[in-house]
Order: sequence, then C-alpha cells, then structure tokens
Amino acid sequence: MFLFLAFSATAQYKFDKPLYGAAYYSEYTPTDRLDKDVEMMLQSGVTVVRIGESSWGLFEPSEGKFEFAWMDRIVNKFQKAGIKVILGTPTYSIPAWMAKAYPEVLSVKANGEKSYYGIRQNMDFYNAKFRFFSERIIRRLMERYAKNPNVIGFQLDNELVARGVNNDDYFEGFKAYVKEKFKGNLASLNKEWGLNYWGMNINTWDEFYARDGVTNPSYKLEWERWNRKALADFLNWQADIVKEYKRKDQFMTHCFMPHFSDIDPFASFRQMQYPAINIYNKVQDKQDGRLIAFAGDYMRTTSKGNYLVTETNANGIGWDLKSYYPPYDGQLRQNMFSHLASGANMVEYWHWATLHYGQETYWGGLLGHDQEPNRVYNEFGAASKEVSKIGEKIVNLKKQNKAALLFSHDSYYGLNFMLFSKDDNYEFIKKLHQSLFDNNIEADVIPCDVMSDFSQYKLLIVPPLYVATDALLEKIDAFVKNGGEVVMLFKSGYCNEHNAVRAMKAPGPLRKACGFYYQEYSTIEKLDLKDNEFGITKGAANSWLEFLVPETAKVLASVNHTFFGKWATVTENDYGKGHLVYIGTVPSDELLNSIVKKSAQRAGVLPLKGQYTFPVILREGTNDKGKKIHYLFNYSANAKQVVYPYGKSLSLLDNRNVKNGDNIEIPAWGVIITEE
Amino acid sequence: MFLFLAFSATAQYKFDKPLYGAAYYSEYTPTDRLDKDVEMMLQSGVTVVRIGESSWGLFEPSEGKFEFAWMDRIVNKFQKAGIKVILGTPTYSIPAWMAKAYPEVLSVKANGEKSYYGIRQNMDFYNAKFRFFSERIIRRLMERYAKNPNVIGFQLDNELVARGVNNDDYFEGFKAYVKEKFKGNLASLNKEWGLNYWGMNINTWDEFYARDGVTNPSYKLEWERWNRKALADFLNWQADIVKEYKRKDQFMTHCFMPHFSDIDPFASFRQMQYPAINIYNKVQDKQDGRLIAFAGDYMRTTSKGNYLVTETNANGIGWDLKSYYPPYDGQLRQNMFSHLASGANMVEYWHWATLHYGQETYWGGLLGHDQEPNRVYNEFGAASKEVSKIGEKIVNLKKQNKAALLFSHDSYYGLNFMLFSKDDNYEFIKKLHQSLFDNNIEADVIPCDVMSDFSQYKLLIVPPLYVATDALLEKIDAFVKNGGEVVMLFKSGYCNEHNAVRAMKAPGPLRKACGFYYQEYSTIEKLDLKDNEFGITKGAANSWLEFLVPETAKVLASVNHTFFGKWATVTENDYGKGHLVYIGTVPSDELLNSIVKKSAQRAGVLPLKGQYTFPVILREGTNDKGKKIHYLFNYSANAKQVVYPYGKSLSLLDNRNVKNGDNIEIPAWGVIITEE
Amino acid sequence: MFLFLAFSATAQYKFDKPLYGAAYYSEYTPTDRLDKDVEMMLQSGVTVVRIGESSWGLFEPSEGKFEFAWMDRIVNKFQKAGIKVILGTPTYSIPAWMAKAYPEVLSVKANGEKSYYGIRQNMDFYNAKFRFFSERIIRRLMERYAKNPNVIGFQLDNELVARGVNNDDYFEGFKAYVKEKFKGNLASLNKEWGLNYWGMNINTWDEFYARDGVTNPSYKLEWERWNRKALADFLNWQADIVKEYKRKDQFMTHCFMPHFSDIDPFASFRQMQYPAINIYNKVQDKQDGRLIAFAGDYMRTTSKGNYLVTETNANGIGWDLKSYYPPYDGQLRQNMFSHLASGANMVEYWHWATLHYGQETYWGGLLGHDQEPNRVYNEFGAASKEVSKIGEKIVNLKKQNKAALLFSHDSYYGLNFMLFSKDDNYEFIKKLHQSLFDNNIEADVIPCDVMSDFSQYKLLIVPPLYVATDALLEKIDAFVKNGGEVVMLFKSGYCNEHNAVRAMKAPGPLRKACGFYYQEYSTIEKLDLKDNEFGITKGAANSWLEFLVPETAKVLASVNHTFFGKWATVTENDYGKGHLVYIGTVPSDELLNSIVKKSAQRAGVLPLKGQYTFPVILREGTNDKGKKIHYLFNYSANAKQVVYPYGKSLSLLDNRNVKNGDNIEIPAWGVIITEE
Repeated sequence: MFLFLAFSATAQYKFDKPLYGAAYYSEYTPTDRLDKDVEMMLQSGVTVVRIGESSWGLFEPSEGKFEFAWMDRIVNKFQKAGIKVILGTPTYSIPAWMAKAYPEVLSVKANGEKSYYGIRQNMDFYNAKFRFFSERIIRRLMERYAKNPNVIGFQLDNELVARGVNNDDYFEGFKAYVKEKFKGNLASLNKEWGLNYWGMNINTWDEFYARDGVTNPSYKLEWERWNRKALADFLNWQADIVKEYKRKDQFMTHCFMPHFSDIDPFASFRQMQYPAINIYNKVQDKQDGRLIAFAGDYMRTTSKGNYLVTETNANGIGWDLKSYYPPYDGQLRQNMFSHLASGANMVEYWHWATLHYGQETYWGGLLGHDQEPNRVYNEFGAASKEVSKIGEKIVNLKKQNKAALLFSHDSYYGLNFMLFSKDDNYEFIKKLHQSLFDNNIEADVIPCDVMSDFSQYKLLIVPPLYVATDALLEKIDAFVKNGGEVVMLFKSGYCNEHNAVRAMKAPGPLRKACGFYYQEYSTIEKLDLKDNEFGITKGAANSWLEFLVPETAKVLASVNHTFFGKWATVTENDYGKGHLVYIGTVPSDELLNSIVKKSAQRAGVLPLKGQYTFPVILREGTNDKGKKIHYLFNYSANAKQVVYPYGKSLSLLDNRNVKNGDNIEIPAWGVIITEE
Repeated sequence: MFLFLAFSATAQYKFDKPLYGAAYYSEYTPTDRLDKDVEMMLQSGVTVVRIGESSWGLFEPSEGKFEFAWMDRIVNKFQKAGIKVILGTPTYSIPAWMAKAYPEVLSVKANGEKSYYGIRQNMDFYNAKFRFFSERIIRRLMERYAKNPNVIGFQLDNELVARGVNNDDYFEGFKAYVKEKFKGNLASLNKEWGLNYWGMNINTWDEFYARDGVTNPSYKLEWERWNRKALADFLNWQADIVKEYKRKDQFMTHCFMPHFSDIDPFASFRQMQYPAINIYNKVQDKQDGRLIAFAGDYMRTTSKGNYLVTETNANGIGWDLKSYYPPYDGQLRQNMFSHLASGANMVEYWHWATLHYGQETYWGGLLGHDQEPNRVYNEFGAASKEVSKIGEKIVNLKKQNKAALLFSHDSYYGLNFMLFSKDDNYEFIKKLHQSLFDNNIEADVIPCDVMSDFSQYKLLIVPPLYVATDALLEKIDAFVKNGGEVVMLFKSGYCNEHNAVRAMKAPGPLRKACGFYYQEYSTIEKLDLKDNEFGITKGAANSWLEFLVPETAKVLASVNHTFFGKWATVTENDYGKGHLVYIGTVPSDELLNSIVKKSAQRAGVLPLKGQYTFPVILREGTNDKGKKIHYLFNYSANAKQVVYPYGKSLSLLDNRNVKNGDNIEIPAWGVIITEE
Repeated sequence: MFLFLAFSATAQYKFDKPLYGAAYYSEYTPTDRLDKDVEMMLQSGVTVVRIGESSWGLFEPSEGKFEFAWMDRIVNKFQKAGIKVILGTPTYSIPAWMAKAYPEVLSVKANGEKSYYGIRQNMDFYNAKFRFFSERIIRRLMERYAKNPNVIGFQLDNELVARGVNNDDYFEGFKAYVKEKFKGNLASLNKEWGLNYWGMNINTWDEFYARDGVTNPSYKLEWERWNRKALADFLNWQADIVKEYKRKDQFMTHCFMPHFSDIDPFASFRQMQYPAINIYNKVQDKQDGRLIAFAGDYMRTTSKGNYLVTETNANGIGWDLKSYYPPYDGQLRQNMFSHLASGANMVEYWHWATLHYGQETYWGGLLGHDQEPNRVYNEFGAASKEVSKIGEKIVNLKKQNKAALLFSHDSYYGLNFMLFSKDDNYEFIKKLHQSLFDNNIEADVIPCDVMSDFSQYKLLIVPPLYVATDALLEKIDAFVKNGGEVVMLFKSGYCNEHNAVRAMKAPGPLRKACGFYYQEYSTIEKLDLKDNEFGITKGAANSWLEFLVPETAKVLASVNHTFFGKWATVTENDYGKGHLVYIGTVPSDELLNSIVKKSAQRAGVLPLKGQYTFPVILREGTNDKGKKIHYLFNYSANAKQVVYPYGKSLSLLDNRNVKNGDNIEIPAWGVIITEE
C-alpha cells in the first residue's frame, strides 16, 4: 500500500506528443561520430534516445574505478540538441573484471551447467555480490545524471528474464519462499503437491530438493512463480534506489520482452509509470500487425494507461543472417503507427546505427554499416515529420474495450509441462487474439491470474485455462450468469492453483456454466466435423479432443468418427443471462473465427459498420480531448478500397475531410488516421 | 546348482484362475479413498492388487524412522475384502533424506553426467550405502507383512534396467568381472578385444579405462553383459533376503520391461516362479496384438511355465499428452485375453486410478481423475466377470510350439554399435515375429545366447545373429542337417562372442549350412528384385545388401541392378535333411512373409485348416486338464467371418457348441474362446 | 629464414615413379600375418607402406619401458621385400598409462566438456607433459629407424586438427599470442575487436576471458588463427626433432585432412618436402572426381610442387555401416589416376586390410575381413601394373594454370560465425571449383590470406571474401585493372582482417573495381531472375540477396520481384584493362556455370578444342621431360565418345597412337592417358 502511494506520487511524466527515436551507442562506433550522429538525428526528426544501459564496463573499467566523462559528453550533446534521453542502469551486462574476480556472480543453470564470460545476462541476478556492485554503479550514475533536465526517465536493467538461474543462493531463496507460502507446514506441502508420489515426500526443510531433477508439476509451477517474483523484486529493488535520486517528473521503466508468461506485470510494473516493451515483428510479406496488436493490447491493459516501445526492428535482424529481412517501402512507418494505435506513447528502434562488432553485427539499425543516409533512414525521417505534425492528437490514446482475452501465466506453464502437441501449447493464445484482431474486434488482454475484474466486458475469450483457482473460475461463472458471452477453450478448469488435477468430473467448477461434463479425452490427428451450423467440417478438429457429455448445453458440433463422434466437440450453454460456447478441441482458424464472430455478434461487439477483416484493420481510441481517433491499416501489398465506416472526420495526415460512406483507398502497407 | 534346488523348493504358488486387477496407491489420493476404492474394486471384480513398491519415503520418512500403520490398514482392508496382494520392495525410488545425506547413492552417467533428486531410478543400484538401506527396508517390510495370508507374492524392485549407471564403484565391479573372466590374463584381453588398435592396449589392470570414452566394440559388448549380470545379481540379492521371511507358497517376481536386450532372463528369473512383464501396447486404430504376443512368447519361453502381466495400459498413457490414446470399446478386454492367450496367469493394469499429481498425471488408470465409474471401468467389470466364469479352463495355459524365433542379446548390441541404418537395427526382430504371428504360426522366442536346445522345433527364424559363439552356430548347422528348416537373416555369423569379426569368409562357421560365401556388402537405398519365385520385386531389398556367391545354395532372388545384380540376395540351401533360406538384405514385409510361409510349409508348421491371416489371429494352448483351448481374435474395427477350423468344441464365454466348418463371426476388436 | 634454408637443404627425396600402396598394421591382425601379407603385397604390386603412427601403446607399453622388436621385424621384412616405408610418429593416440597417470594431458573442450580415454586424439597437444612423452618416443623411434635404407620418409603425427582443445594452458598460450600481436596494447585490442559492445572491454590482461562463453566475432576469428598457429608449431616442433636424426634424402610429411580452413598450409608445410592429404571421396553412382580435384588443386598449389595421398578409400568406409559403399568395378583405379592427374606422387589406401576390432571395423581396406584376394584387391593389382608400366612418364606432374580459385581461411570462419543459410556457408566454394572442373578449366586453389601473388593468372574466381585485409583487396583491384578477369561472389570485402565490418558503403575497397555500391541486403527464399543474357531465370537466386546500385558497372541480371527487382543482382564492370563480374546472390549451378564460362572465355582459359563438360573431364600437366601428359576421364556409368582434342600423342596404357580429331572411347568409369 505504501508502495502504491509512492507510485501515485511519482506519476508525473506527461507526453505531449509521441516520442520517436532509437537506442544509441556512441561508445561502440569505430570512429568518433557523436557530432555527426546528432546532426543526422536532428535532420531526421529523432526526439528521444535511450543510452547507457549496456556499458557498465566503460563506466567502471576496473573495480571501483569510475569513468563518466565520455557519457557526460553524450548527455550534454543531447541536451544541447533538445533530444530527450532515457538513461539505463547497466546491470544486465557485467564487466570482465567482475567475472574474473568474483566468478560466483555467474549463473549456474539446471544440472550444473555453468555460464561463462563473453556474453550479457550471464549472471545470477540474485547474487549478493552482484547486488552490491549493481547498487554502487546505479548510485554513481544517478548521482551524476539524475538531475539532468533532459533526462526524462530511467530504464532499470534490460530485457530481464530468469534465464534458468539455478545457483544455490537462488534455490535457497525459493526454499524460503515456499516455506513462507506454506507457513512452514510440510504436511501441507506434501499434500498439495502430491509429493507422496514415488515416495518423494519431504520431512524436513533441509531435505527440500533443488530444481535440477524435479519432475513434479506443482513444484515446477511454483518455481516459475518464484522466478516471476524474484524478477519483480529485483526491479523494485533497483527502483527503490533510483527513487532516492530522480525528480518526480522522471519516470522509471523497463524494456520487457513479449514473453508475458515470464513476468508478473503488476508486481513488476508497480513503480513504473510507463512500462515498456521490445517488439520485433515480422516484415516483408509476413508483416501483419498481429504481434504488435497482441503485445500492445496486453501492455496497454496491464499498464492501465499508456506504454512505451523501447525496441523494435528498424531493419533486418538476427544473431546471424538466416532471417535478415529489411522492411519493404512503407512498412517501417506502418509498424510505427501500429504501435501508436495500440496505445504506445513512444517508439524507439534498436537502434540508431548497425554495429560493426560483436554478436549483433547484423541487428540492423536506422543507419547501416556505412553510417550514411539510406532508404530506411529516409522513411524514418518522413514518418517522424508525420508524428510531429499530428502527435498532439494521437498521443495518450485510451480505449474502452468490451471484449477481452484472458492470459494465464500459470496455465502457460501447466500446459507446457504436459504438452498435448509439440512446441509451445500456449502459443495458441495468439490464434485467439488473431480471431479478434482479424475481425476488427478490439480487445484487452488480461493477465487473469492476477487481474480478474471482468465488469467492463461483454465478451471473454478464455484460452486453455488449465490452471486456475476456484475463485477465478467462479468469476467466470458469474460473468456468464450475469449476461456475459464466453468462448472457452479445452482443458479449462482442469487443475487447481497447485497445478494438481481436480478430483471431480471435468471441467470441475465450470461444469454448471459449461453445461456438460467429460471423463475422457484423446490425442488425435486432424479430424473432420459432422455438418454443423458453421458449415465448417474439413480438418476443423486437431491434436486434442475431449469427450463432452452435454447436461444443459446443446451440441454445436461433433467430429465425424465412429468412436469419437459419440460425444460433443463444440457446445453452447445458455446460462443465466449469458452464453458459454466451449470448444473441446484445437479448432482450425476458420472454425475459431466463426465461433468467435457468433459470440461477438451476440455480445454486441462485432463492428457494426463495414465488416472489414484482415488485411484491412481498424483500430481506435480516445485522445486527451475526448475525440475519437481512428486508424485504418492495410497490411497487404495491394491498395484496398474501404467505405468509410465512421461519422464526419478529419483525415489527419492530409487534412482531408471524410464522412460516412465515402470511398477511400488505403495504400499498400499504408494507414489512414482520422479524428472523428 | 544349490540355487536351482532352492528354486524348485519354492515353486509352490498355484493359480486356479487368472488374476485380474491393478496396481494401487491409496497413499497418493487427494482424499482418503481406501474404503470407497475397495468397494468399487469388489463391484468390478478386481481379484489382485500390487502395492507398496513406490513408497519408500512413506515407509521410512526419515533415516531409520519407520511408519507402517498406513500400510497395515491397506493390507488389512484387502485381506478382509479377499483381494489378493502382491507386495513390492520399494527400492526403485529412494527417499529425499537419502539423496540429501548420502549424495553418493545418486548415479553418475557417462562423461560425468550427474543424476539429481526429484525422480525415481536415479541411484547407483550397486552402491553399498544404497544396498545397506535397501536391505534394512526390505527386512522391515518382510518382518511385518511376509506372513500375511493374503499376500501371495513379492515384487523385487521395479522395472529394473541399468540406466547408464557409471559410478566409480560400478566400474570397479566391471573391472573385477572382466579380470575374472579373463583369469587376470591381460595379454588375452588385449588380443580378444583387439586393444592394440590405436595403441590402446592395457598393461596393468590399474590402467583399465572407464566406459566413458570407450569406442571398442568388444569392451562395449562386455559392458552390456556386465549390466545384465549386475542387474540379475541385484535381484537375486533381494531374493535371498526375501526368502528368509516368505512362506513357501508365496512367489517372488519382478516387473520386467520388454527391452529384452537389457536383461539376462535366466540369471534374473532364477528365483522367480512367475516372472512378470509390463506391456504398454498400441490401441485405437493401431491395436494389433503383436507386441503382446511377441513379449508374451518370450516371457512364456523364458519362464518355462507361465508369467504375469504386472502392468498394462488401462487408458491413455504418457509423461505428457502427445500420445494419450484411450482404447476403443472392446479393446481393453481384447488385450486382456491376448495376454492370457500367450500364457499369462495374471493381468494387472497400471493402475487403479489416475493420479492427480506428479510426472505421471496422465498415465490413465481404470478410474479417471474424477474417481467415478466410467467407460473403461465398466468394460473392466464386464471382462472380469468373464475371467471369473471361465478362468479355471484357461489358466496355466501351456504350448508346445514347433517354430521358434531366436533372440540374441549380444547381437542386439553388436548390430546397434555399428548401425547399417538409423534407429535400432535389431528392432527388425519384431518384423520377424510379425511374419509368424500374422500368419498364425505360433512360436517360442528363444534367448539363444543362453538357451540353444532346438530339439523340439521344426522351424527356426534366425534374426541377424551378428554376435555368436562357434558353439551356437554349430547347433544351428546341426539343426538344419538333422532336417530342420531355417530362415536366416543377413549378418548372421559375422562376429565371434567378443564382437570381433571372424577372420574368414562370411558367414564364417555357417558357410556350409548356408551354401554360399560372401566377401562384400553395401549400404543401399531401396532396390527392386529381378523376377523370382515369390513374384515380389518392387522395393523388396532395403538398407543393406550382401554380395552372396552361391557354392551349394541355389539363388531364389537377386536385385535388379547392373552392379549389385551380379550376386545372389536370397538363397536356399539343401543341407543334410533340412533347408536353410538366407536373406542377404532387409526384406520388405511382403517378401519376408512369403519366404517364412514357404519354409513354414515345408516344416509342417503352417496352419493346415483355414489360412487365416492378420487381423484374424488364432492362438492356442493346453490347459491343466490337457484340453485344447483356442482363442480366435479379430484385431480390426470390422466383424470377421471365420469357418471354424478345429474339431468339436465349446465356446466358453457363451456356452455354445461349435464344430469344424461352422461359420462363426468374431466381432470388431473381439475374441472367441473355445475348448476343444 | 634459417628454417627456409633448412627446408631447401633437405629437399632431396626424388620420386622416379608414383608410389602405390597402403597403410599397414601388422600389430592389429588376429593372427600373425606378416609373411602372408607381404607376399600378397608383392603379388599385387604394393610399392610403399605407411606404418607405426598408431601404436604408441605398443612401442611404450608402460611409462619409459620400450619395445621395438615387433617393429624391427616389420621394418626388416619390408626392407627385404623392397617395399618402401613411411614411418609415422605415434603421437596422435596416447597409451592408456599416460591418461591414467597424467590425466591433465586429456583435452578439455569448451564449457568444461572433458575428454576420456578410449579413443585417439583426445589430448591437449599443447600440454607440456604430453610434449615430454612425445619427444621421448619420437627420439627413440628415430634412433632406431631413421637410418634404415628402406625408410623414405616420416609422417609427423596424424590428421592433426585442434579438435576444440580449450585447456587452461592452451588458453594461456592464446592470451600470450594475442598480447604479442597487439604489442600489449589493450586499448588497441578493445578498439579493433569492438569489446566496448556489451561493456566487455578488457582493462588488464588478467581479465582477458577464455573462449568458452565468447560471442565476439573478432575474438572467435583470432582463436581460429591461434589454432592454426598452434598446430603448425606442433608440427614444426616434431620436425625439428626428427631432423636431428633423418638422412637428407628422407622427407617429412603429415597427412592433412581436406578441412583446409583448419590448417595454415605454409606454416605447416614449411619443413615438408611433400605434404600429404587424406581424401575420402564418394563412389558408386556419386563418383565424380570433384573432391579429388579440389583437394588436389589446393595441395598442389600450396605444396609448390607435388604432394602425396596418404589415405584414400579402398572400399566402403564409416564408423558405422550407414554409408558403406564399395566402389563399382573400375572406380578404384579411376580414383587413383584422378589423384595422379592432380599432381600426386603417391596413393596409399587406408588401409591394407580391414580390421577385426575397434571403432573402424568397417573402414574397408584392400583386403576384407577374410584377408583373402577379392574384387578390390584384384583391381588394385591390375592398376599397380599400369602405374609400374607408365610411372616414369606421369610422375612429378607440373601445371601452369592460368585460372585460380581463391580460398580464404578467415572468410570461412567469418561467414560461418554469421550464417546466412544453414550448414557450412563456405562449402559453396566447392560449387565454385566445380564450375571450373566441370567445364574443364584447370585451376590452382590459392590460400589468399597467406598467398596473394596473382601474376601468373588470367582469371580469378573469388568466393565470398568476407574477411580480408585492405592489401588483399587492393591486389584484386590491381589484378583487374591490369587486364585480369574476375568472377566475385557476394559479401566480398565486407569485413576487415579483424572480422569487423568496414564502416563504409559495401563492398568497401572493392567498390571501384566492382563499379557499384550497396547499403542493403536480405535473406531470401529462391527467386527467379528477369530475362538476361544468360537465358537463365528459374530459381537462379538463392538464400541471400544484395541490393546493388551500379555506378560504373552494367547490370547483367536482376531478380523478378516487385521490391527486390529494383536493384541489380549480377553486374559486370569494365575496369582498367579487365573485367569484374559480381554475383550478389547464391547463384544456381546453371547460372554460375554460365557466368564462369563467359569470364573464362574472355580470359582465354576456356578449353579451345572440344567443349567437353562433366562427366568427361580432361586434366593435364607436364612431366619431368617437359612432355604434356593428358588424362581423359569419364566419370559415368556409360562409355563416352570423344574427339581427341590434342596433337599427335601416344596413349600410354595401350601404346596406341592418337591424333587430333580421332574418335576415341572412354569406358565407363574409365581413363585414357596420353603423352603429347
């Protein structure tokens, strides 16, 4: 609670336009390019840079010996140029002297696999020595730069994930965490986790065994929770230090990766006004806006405001060249606006200029290896002018969505510990988001393990909610009863919060809302459906099939098979004032789309005017003045004709008036932005 | 010899009906279900349970502190219910305290790979500390339960295989074993194993190097023999302890896995009246009875009596859900009878009820996670009534087969150390068994490295007998000479008992019986045959081709190829009173079937009446009263019409008389059982 | 300089005929076969054997205890038989006692991966203890055998490559090497390698980190150079010892592997009159002479004279049997002559007789496991008669090629550290050689990192020259300017000698000679070309595409694609008196062939008479008497008719006269050899 107050008190940075820029590493260039780089930034309209987060070894070349002159010069240069600065704490990549003198800071992975120096993110972030040195460098940096008027915010560490850290101290932390969680009650631990299995019960805390050889799904799930907690603790530990120095109008952030399962958003974002995300999306023929929207919808929902994009691809990327794809003409700009259309207030590329050295020699920047103007740099320059022109109207975009997609951190792991098909079994959630996105149903993405107030929504899409508390399941039940529409996927309700299977007929506490039970299921190859109301039969059921026995539900579809066909596969239950449609298999995209559209229609969240579907994507929000801002994207190589579906509006980029029913053309890889 | 006497003296448990039940773990259930479970067992006809083998940690929660009350209650409950009990020694899964206090009991695999706690079977079963604790818990268990009237037998350890144990003490054991085998003669060791190669000769026993980096095929083969010996020694060590306590009418057993290459049957079964096997077979569209018959034929042959099935699949199984296949209706019952038709006296599922925790959460039991009656439970109940009804007639089934398939432990390893195609090169033996099974030629499966009395047989199928003593090859020669029919596969006779190649024209000592020699061979892609008496040409030769030069043999087939076609591929030799057909390639199933049928015809073991082939499978044996029992299986989803091929009989399950020539129908996934 | 003199002084062994034989291991045979083997060698025409290099454990069965009697007998036997002997130092496979008593000699690979005894080449060849024992055994061997009149040369160690050695002492050697290279200047090291990236700068030499975790491409490249230096140093260290004992007419050699990237030829060959190579080539339907020619062209070029073939396949080979392919009739002989046609003076098979033991049980020799005459042995015998008959005319063959293919050790690693497609990205160099070989353009293969005098050539083929000094690029520039023809592949000129990207428009210093620049590139799938002068469009561009912007160059081809088609893909630049054709993609074989032929035509190196292409391959050279020797090969299963393209000649094998225009037939897998 104290911390929540602290958060409110510091929530003071205000964007008046979206910022547009790049990460910048003057210290990496073969020759001194600072003046030239800043000149080219100004020419192309860069308004923000992120600096400093990768260069601990330069700030502190030997233990306790600090050098800041080089960075003073950079910070001063940006101050003079009026380019805003986000300064990073450099803790994700340790100096060589630390690994040499204190090898215990290096991480040890499962089964004794050691980490070595020569790469970033090779440390045990829980290690006391590492923390000691981290605190010292953070304080030194803050002492020197916190008050700089041009520094608008601080990034704490970089792309933090647990990376398999398994050092002894980290395990001891886990043990203490579990002990506290179970209030020291070993009997309870043995029972809830089912440790009697194979006689692996624990009878003193001393016997509690390390993660390495563990097969128990409950232990494994709790370990992942511990990872999320330890990461959030680390970020908040840094935030507590930075807070001692920073001005109130400076924000703290962190550049998260879209591996949402690895991070507890609320615990991690607690002290961050604007959490940030790094999104590397597909381009060329595969550019589709989907990942940007999925990640953006999650970040906007969890930030409860606006978020930042700290890294995104300017050019081809990779740790080698096997998938180095520069964008087609127009794609860089389209992606930038795609971020803003989801609620981002800043887009920064990684990075300003491609490096000549190191592992990321081919992670392309706005400038290439020649450091001269080029096609991408030019497109950036043109796009930055557009942002500058209309920025005040599109910044701080807010949405009030009626549809939501649930995201369960615990189910991600629960499913993947017991895969029903190869690869990431939770990846299917992206198909669920796609079924909304492609049909222009805007949605929030809710981390339902830690956020389960569904009161603003009319439609919930529930991905395999394999691990869930009774309380969460009851909230879904109540949501339907009170008139909500739910599309729910297989395996939901199967396990309790310990990833232990519920000893009752599936889907457990969801049985009433679902209107069926099942006792059996089977791995399957692709199966057809019998005729059904969706008119979709061919190959519509995949990988997994539950044998649903309707009680109050009606059957929407069954598979066409002598044995499996005896049970229902897709059901619909009228429950209270709402409806729950359940899909007891991995549906084909086509079937999923039809089911989602049916429920969206009933929920009243299917777009009324103009049933555009991908690649024509409509996104919208409300700006600071309460005006509706509409984005009309064309994620394809061919221009698209659209009948304008909104009321009288101004097309912002070309100052053209448009009204409902007007024929307008969205160019290939283009976007039209209107204010209604 | 002393031990053989001991074996005879204890051979006193007598089955009067097949037992039918499941493994049971009351200690794993989320709530206390013992009463309810036993009630449901009685309702469904469970007659036997296996308990205790997995719960050392509960018997001995701390070092030297024992708790048996929980098990007393279970044993007493079953005694009252009249359900027979097989009690296991719990040594395959060590308690957490042991790994913590004595980490040296954990196994170390090749190249220093360590084992960790959190899973079963992670110990060095040769370790003295482990043996100390094992002996103590076995004695305690025996003291407490040995005399229980309801306990019919004891299972020693569980699914024992060597699992790559490579600890120092285990290697020292190997060294001592080799030293004894070679009577300390290093010159002989260097010579037989060819250690001069790469100058890796040994000149003191101290220099004898560990398994880790070894490439020498002779060493590797001997290591596998050591594994088999060490496993058998461990089982007999447990048997010696248990014998001190058990009644004479209680049997000892072990649940072997059908990885027959890993276990020396006679050394391991020595003190076991009824060795047991765990068979997890394919179901749904892939149910075919083949693995059940193959493993059953081996177990029946090697047990020299009857055997038990301690585990088999009740439902979908797996350590994840990627191949979770519940049986179709009727398949559970059909598989149970398939076991009995091979000579099993007991079928136990693993397990009674599906677990809610742990790695095997999705290893389905008779009950599902809801612990309520279901389709599979109901099918079990119906089948158990049938077993009860006809059990006295079908128990203790004996066979006197005239055909046999050889199985060579040494050749399994010899071939796989020098693969001629990817994957397990000895797996082909299952195709050989299938060529018998599918054509309804009942056969024994003989571990020919340790059992080579072929006097009762007319037909031998010899799989690639890559490693063999001269003595074994001479017995095969004599078998043919004396009128036997042999179908022999490529590579037979190539290496001596040290897995060293014989320095003579192949097939070495088999040359006379084969009637050809060869000096060359080649890896091949699929090749066609030239026209031949079998009328089979397309893609009939695969992977491997020997260049056979007939001396007395005639050519049955050659490949259709400019170069390779100059030699023979399939030959037949009239030798003495018998014939040897040799296949110098990996034949297609079609070609193999034709060759086997030809030899079977000549041997007089091809079924005379009714040439039924898979999926209609006929199995038979003689019961305790000397009556013929016939099983007629239909391993397919469609009912099959069969003209009854035997004499006047009684169909046991429906008390119907049938006689030769009657048209009878075997239902889909069905079985008919008659007494002639 | 001193060493160069030493080299000259010892260059005294003179071949009067090619030698033809095999490696021989009397010490490996199951029975004593020495007399029989030598008798069979004499019968079949063996003129040379290689012995001793694999049997340290027999020379020194215990530490410091030596046994040579067994080898005396062998050497004496060959002396009596008049079969020449090459004696090997046995240092590539250590005795068991050494690994036991001095485990520190075993190599440790990256990330702590340990080596174990039981295989060859498992030592840290840099280890002082290993060097001590190596020196002692070498001196003992030399003392005993150096003066033997029949010993013509010495092989130092065997198939030496670094094999991932990463022991501490080896790393310390690397650190000292780097320190010396950078003259102790850490600032220079940090700058040239770009160690500021991720703050991994080094500030004391003590901090310099080991290879294990390194990702820096400059470090990784330098490590590979260190490997090459350490290997050459080791060979020269052995040579210095051997030189103390050997006669001047005895040569030193080493059997290199055709992994040319691993070995610095000049540093390694420095004291070797005749370096040798082990070539295992494809046979049966895949026999094509290509690897023999590629490796031979490299060895001939780098040996600056003639070279030896110490190992090549007599029969099927492999460490298992998955690709065991004996040669078709005639192929053994054809391959032998293929070696000679490239400039080899000796062909030795590995090995005389197939082993009965060990990892290489199926590495087939001239004799098979039966040790009796066979098809291959007979073909050897016939071929050896031919060598004996015409040997004086074909030995010491010299070539004066006008075309050359560059080979860059550094680019091999530079490209492979940053793969643009899966697998070895430098393997493409074999396609480049093939485009010459298949079109009968004889070429040298030049290790251009250490040899860049192009004055004798008219045509250079430049493979992706990704890493190069400015000096090398300037030499190529000058070559074109002075009238040379160049075909250059993508990525050339991209990085400097530190594997750091040049900060200038690509292709950097090559821009003027190329006549274009480019700023962008993309990974691609297969793309078609637009119509072009080569008439080749379908799928001609693969994997990688550079966006070439011509300045003075003309466009020869562009891809057929809306976006990518805006740039050039193949260009030609008139530069000075020469021309440079550049291919900015991975071309199809067909496109590559056409481009190379066009440039070869202009360079005047396309064969004038008779445009034969693969499988008809013409090779030639000049013998000791200055006469032209022509080889006409047919690498196919069908006889080929050829119009004899040279002047009046004698067909050496059949003493037939042939003249220009004669129709002659080359048999399947055959060869005709003429003296013009």
